[in-house]
Amino acid sequence: MRVHKGDLGVPARRVTLTTGESLDLYDTTGPVHEGAAGLPPLRAPWIARRKDEAPTQLYYARQGVVTEEMQFVAIRENMAPEFVRDEIARGRAIIPANKNHPESEPMIIGRNFLVKVNANIGNSAVSSNIEEEVEKLRWSIKWGADTVMDLSTGKQIHETREAIIRNSPVPIGTVPIYQALEKVKGRPELLDINVFLETLHEQAEQGVDYFTIHAGVLLRYVPLTAKRVTGIVSRGGSIMAKWCLAHHRENFLYDRFDDICKLMRRYDVSFSLGDGLRPGCIADANDDAQFGELRTLGELTKVAWAHDCQVMIEGPGHVPIHKIKQNMDEQLKHCHEAPFYTLGPLTTDIAPGYDHLTSAIGAAIIGSHGTAMLCYVTPKEHLGLPDKEDVKQGVIAYKIAAHAADLAKGHPGAQDRDDALSRARFAFRWEDQFNLALDPEIARQYHDATLPAEGAKTAHFCSMCGPKFCSMEITQQVRQMADAGMAEKSREFAEQGGEVYVPAGPAK
Amino acid sequence: MRVHKGDLGVPARRVTLTTGESLDLYDTTGPVHEGAAGLPPLRAPWIARRKDEAPTQLYYARQGVVTEEMQFVAIRENMAPEFVRDEIARGRAIIPANKNHPESEPMIIGRNFLVKVNANIGNSAVSSNIEEEVEKLRWSIKWGADTVMDLSTGKQIHETREAIIRNSPVPIGTVPIYQALEKVKGRPELLDINVFLETLHEQAEQGVDYFTIHAGVLLRYVPLTAKRVTGIVSRGGSIMAKWCLAHHRENFLYDRFDDICKLMRRYDVSFSLGDGLRPGCIADANDDAQFGELRTLGELTKVAWAHDCQVMIEGPGHVPIHKIKQNMDEQLKHCHEAPFYTLGPLTTDIAPGYDHLTSAIGAAIIGSHGTAMLCYVTPKEHLGLPDKEDVKQGVIAYKIAAHAADLAKGHPGAQDRDDALSRARFAFRWEDQFNLALDPEIARQYHDATLPAEGAKTAHFCSMCGPKFCSMEITQQVRQMADAGMAEKSREFAEQGGEVYVPAGPAK
Repeated sequence: MRVHKGDLGVPARRVTLTTGESLDLYDTTGPVHEGAAGLPPLRAPWIARRKDEAPTQLYYARQGVVTEEMQFVAIRENMAPEFVRDEIARGRAIIPANKNHPESEPMIIGRNFLVKVNANIGNSAVSSNIEEEVEKLRWSIKWGADTVMDLSTGKQIHETREAIIRNSPVPIGTVPIYQALEKVKGRPELLDINVFLETLHEQAEQGVDYFTIHAGVLLRYVPLTAKRVTGIVSRGGSIMAKWCLAHHRENFLYDRFDDICKLMRRYDVSFSLGDGLRPGCIADANDDAQFGELRTLGELTKVAWAHDCQVMIEGPGHVPIHKIKQNMDEQLKHCHEAPFYTLGPLTTDIAPGYDHLTSAIGAAIIGSHGTAMLCYVTPKEHLGLPDKEDVKQGVIAYKIAAHAADLAKGHPGAQDRDDALSRARFAFRWEDQFNLALDPEIARQYHDATLPAEGAKTAHFCSMCGPKFCSMEITQQVRQMADAGMAEKSREFAEQGGEVYVPAGPAK
Repeated sequence: MRVHKGDLGVPARRVTLTTGESLDLYDTTGPVHEGAAGLPPLRAPWIARRKDEAPTQLYYARQGVVTEEMQFVAIRENMAPEFVRDEIARGRAIIPANKNHPESEPMIIGRNFLVKVNANIGNSAVSSNIEEEVEKLRWSIKWGADTVMDLSTGKQIHETREAIIRNSPVPIGTVPIYQALEKVKGRPELLDINVFLETLHEQAEQGVDYFTIHAGVLLRYVPLTAKRVTGIVSRGGSIMAKWCLAHHRENFLYDRFDDICKLMRRYDVSFSLGDGLRPGCIADANDDAQFGELRTLGELTKVAWAHDCQVMIEGPGHVPIHKIKQNMDEQLKHCHEAPFYTLGPLTTDIAPGYDHLTSAIGAAIIGSHGTAMLCYVTPKEHLGLPDKEDVKQGVIAYKIAAHAADLAKGHPGAQDRDDALSRARFAFRWEDQFNLALDPEIARQYHDATLPAEGAKTAHFCSMCGPKFCSMEITQQVRQMADAGMAEKSREFAEQGGEVYVPAGPAK
């Protein structure tokens, strides 16, 4: 059940247990609605009250102002509003919130908050349908996506985006160079700053909350990719690389970065500084091209901050486990603690069809080191366009990675859900276990596959061991036999380093 | 295609690429055969030639003898035979190979070798069928399981095991206490050393290669579990805990460990010292009960080694990411470098239905720290008995974890497969990409779902971007434009810390 807290109506999903207790969980699903009518503009009055020319969250945070958006995320994350403001002011966290996307429920991305998950949707030249994309948006947030990127490249790119934004309670990100390229008939060499700014303007007006901008793909880095096993795998990166080589000039996104900042500041569109040179395979991880670009992204971060623009930094990609930490270390070192937002990373190349899994491993690890948002990878990565089921599999895999990282970071309260579910499991409260699960539907379905009877849901065993061998059942008996006094004695004994112990417990 | 190398006929799977090159991969599938006739006894002549009373691999290794089994694994792992012998002699690796299981193709478990994967199969009281279990065995090894544990607890336990062993090219493990408990009508308090030894004898005669034995569940540890969130979750552990409490006596598996060693030595059955007190949830990870038992397993390791018995140590369970490394550190410290064999660990409790994934994250991490074998977890964990599809999902998830760990450890040659696949991907050699994948069937199926035409398999794009936007295609153009001289100049420039660079490349 969706509940709302405080004057701002911060949402949570309340799970009521059969014991009468309840647990409130972070909720991304947005207000209940159907059709394409659009969501209510929650933030409209907050935005209307602010009349500044430079209305970014970073600007206000630096002025010492706690905005409604900051209050909202403070309640949502169970943190102090002043802490939220301070983290934003330091550039360590962002609230992506375009003033033209009043339908969004504010959320925060930063390493001292819950690890977030992004889901990519969007049509391509070979497959397209607006309703389908809105349905994928709703499907993504149903399973817990915190932001959604619309990566459409096909026809009706403007209309698809409009439908997505108007129906999205989560921030929407895009990669504007895709649409800019459409405008020059798919020929990268015909791109220029004017067509790009025009595209930014169009999308910012619609309400896009963050833009991936590949301003770090510098001319001098491009040749560093020539000897890679898989060269440049980022679409935006390869477009800009081609432009640089075709013109023998520096990336116009870099040269004209100030103009881009000025535009984005007007709407408070956040930067997601793109890693156009991210490694596309294990062999290319952590190379000169990748880390060269990362340092440039750090340089651009300071420029954006000077314009009061919010910034996060995109990261890889394909990285073997032992090289993951270095990515976080270098990012912290060179990008002044701006939030890191990584794609996976995939920890091996050998499992096409399972890259949600190869990458959830890397995502959990880099998340535990401090990455603030994880961009999901679906099972179809490298092979085809994700359908609804792929989107679900990707989001669930990444909610697992993000939560595992929250536990590893000791995020306050993160373990409450694990503990509640484990207590339910141990007490054979099957319905509570299902309802606390990331995917209650699948948990119930798998249980019922072997023990479908309604009675089995209150039975003190499951189909894994059967009634006689159930270890949980036996342990409950053990617990009854081993009273608390005995536990005390045993601990004393262990502390004394003794060898033999015969408890004086009940002779039963 | 399965090929055989050297006089011993060491198997490998040869993947021939469209470029004419080929790559030999580790192969677990065994000789081609159908029905239940049983496999050819590969090792029979080797065993027959050895007439010692104490025919364990550890015994021979200590004598300086390189057995055929050691030669076999040396070729299989691309290591020197003398290195293999030395690792076994030091107790750092084991070759589970009961002399009554001559059908097995020798494999080695140790942290300086490829990380291995175990799949659990077996019927239970509520579901049963011998042919189904043999089919699950074949299915497990088709996807790459290195050993298989038969955890049957239901009817026809002896016959099911016989069918499995006779048809298995991989070592088979069991938990004999399950069958011993059947023999005393499911009442743990009626167990004794005689019924246990009789069970070990029966199973050793059949050819079981390793036994899980919960000899570390000491009386004094049991009360330490009373305040846990999920108590004792190991079936074997809970059986022994109940026995200890019911009799107020020390675990008879511990008291009579010498007798157990003597029996296992006669067949060269390896010990898998069970972690009966492993944590069953995040809250219980790394507690006194768990680490107390671990120290006892280290003590028992020395006893088993004194009998020339091979030993590995079982590990958890449920452990959050930040507590994983401590498990490996404590195991190395207290268990004298005997191989570690862990169940996952699961890195969160909140995703029943996806525990192959919550645990593959932990498995990859602990594998990268040196765990030698990873026991799979299927999507049905905590919910029901795995069917064929669950077994496949579990094995694939763990092959990914094991390979990611091999890459992280820098295992010689591990990256060859990643590189070959990534080169194929970059060159749009779709068929090579499929054939090098862990699961060629799914990779092909996912690709064909959006681009089914045969021609698409040689197309220079995929459905993710479509023909116009393909970043790999653009990069190939970049590569042509950026000649090697340019790369050199760029590197010089970067080293000099320069700011502007206009390459003198072709004006195109």
